[in-house]
Amino acid sequence: MKIIAVEEHFTTKESTVHFRPPIPVVSTKKTAKMATCKGESLDHIEARLKDMDDAGIERHLLSLGPSVEQYEASLGTSIARAVNERVIEVVKKYPKRFAGLATIASQDPESAADELERVVKLGLKGAMIKSHVNGEYLDEKKYWVIFERAAKLGVPIYLHPKEPSPGMIQPYLKYPQLTGAMWGYGAETGLHAMRLICSGLFDKYPELKIILGHLGEAIPFWLWRIDAKGNIDNLAKKPSEYFRDNFYVTTSGMFWHPAIQLVHSALGVDRILFAVDYPMESSEYAVQCIKTLHVSETDRKKIFYRNAEAVFKL
Amino acid sequence: MKIIAVEEHFTTKESTVHFRPPIPVVSTKKTAKMATCKGESLDHIEARLKDMDDAGIERHLLSLGPSVEQYEASLGTSIARAVNERVIEVVKKYPKRFAGLATIASQDPESAADELERVVKLGLKGAMIKSHVNGEYLDEKKYWVIFERAAKLGVPIYLHPKEPSPGMIQPYLKYPQLTGAMWGYGAETGLHAMRLICSGLFDKYPELKIILGHLGEAIPFWLWRIDAKGNIDNLAKKPSEYFRDNFYVTTSGMFWHPAIQLVHSALGVDRILFAVDYPMESSEYAVQCIKTLHVSETDRKKIFYRNAEAVFKL
Repeated sequence: MKIIAVEEHFTTKESTVHFRPPIPVVSTKKTAKMATCKGESLDHIEARLKDMDDAGIERHLLSLGPSVEQYEASLGTSIARAVNERVIEVVKKYPKRFAGLATIASQDPESAADELERVVKLGLKGAMIKSHVNGEYLDEKKYWVIFERAAKLGVPIYLHPKEPSPGMIQPYLKYPQLTGAMWGYGAETGLHAMRLICSGLFDKYPELKIILGHLGEAIPFWLWRIDAKGNIDNLAKKPSEYFRDNFYVTTSGMFWHPAIQLVHSALGVDRILFAVDYPMESSEYAVQCIKTLHVSETDRKKIFYRNAEAVFKL
Repeated sequence: MKIIAVEEHFTTKESTVHFRPPIPVVSTKKTAKMATCKGESLDHIEARLKDMDDAGIERHLLSLGPSVEQYEASLGTSIARAVNERVIEVVKKYPKRFAGLATIASQDPESAADELERVVKLGLKGAMIKSHVNGEYLDEKKYWVIFERAAKLGVPIYLHPKEPSPGMIQPYLKYPQLTGAMWGYGAETGLHAMRLICSGLFDKYPELKIILGHLGEAIPFWLWRIDAKGNIDNLAKKPSEYFRDNFYVTTSGMFWHPAIQLVHSALGVDRILFAVDYPMESSEYAVQCIKTLHVSETDRKKIFYRNAEAVFKL
């Protein structure tokens, strides 16, 4: 069966030379694994293709691993442009094996929107943003120009985790693991998505599509409860309705049937896209998880590639 | 069928006269409903009994609504003692209709442990703690005396939400609803439970039982991922194993089949207890939700009362 994976990260020299982890890196097995994955760098595309072939994955939707929001705006913008050029080049060379998401420096919203438009016209399929922008969230009006442009272009924004923002990280720090994939990434990104919903963004841009990894950062678990305490005064619809209408979720980092079944029940199969989170997770394990999921073959095709083709216009 | 509900709140004059909401109260339908629920006060026990009868609920496990952790320690302790006396009196008068959880002022941990022991010997079935203690979490060693005593007495601690602690609340404040039931309560209490797990508390007290409302504050959704980034160095077991071994979850405020089915798949039926969150939620709706859940009648009995009888020794 055709398999497209939509949250597959890479690095380039431009993206890593300036990069410093925002908080001390926690020693885990995965960090060790990361350091040894040759295919992560776009300089070793053959190694990545082999990893994909080994797992039976036909196509990666590429996105940058390190974030760029933390740099001074002009540096972030120039890294983003250089990274995007590299991705466009790779996609041109291997059009059946790769597609790409833009890197944009959201700290300069106008310029980020312009870069998004520029590279979408060159074939990229949307953009990935790494959650908060130096502690600010994208529901702040100054960032809406990015969403306006995405809606106009008909491309989605993939809202990806990073460590919790400075205004919320304090109680996570005692156990550094809690700042990352174990808990903080989801807490940060789930809250971010809830802020987008509460802001009225989706009343302004009803066609806007947001992608969340990790099966929706727990919002599907809470989907009933986010409506249960009454309406938000300024919104036209119930909070859960925006989630159902404007959001898609991917399986990145959540290869576990009970949670996938919840999302299937809560949102329907058309909202679930396959993703691995290469090179942080095992592609083989991820593929096997969906192959053994108790769904119809029609639904399995939707998860493995049809939904990705529709949402990203592949 | 017998129905026991285990997170059913009350107020007494002693508990409300000093109480001020820690952040501005958000106007919602539920807040309005709260104000009109006569049965909430222990002074109107007949009104509560009527509400229970109307919903077919045989027994409430009573717990105080307002928190006491925010007071100066001696005031908190004296309110807790007065509240516990009232509950003991009610339970004595209606032994088939009520049981009770202790209120303890965790800001004075030694005295809280002593109060727990005192009232458990008078018939109460455990204690409820309202998450952080003025910004501190219960994994700090000074609070372990409470858990040590609970383990010794063989009674559970119900860790109940309140608004996020000062160290994490900043990004929630722009949309005040996010500080409460819509998002912040779960974010606060889920993190709190994760801190307990990371601290090694359950290696020290392997028999300790923690109860979480709201189907486990999203930890069941993340149960696979909390293990996925490697072990925590100081712990004997995987994080998920502590959750499976030391935690029980209740249905309070989460009357929605997809999330209940997830918890059923993830933890097994023996870990799910029925709760309403009276008077914040509709008892009728809650009962109906479990009556229509697709489980065996044996499992339904466990959820409705047998698990509660076992865990709280009713």
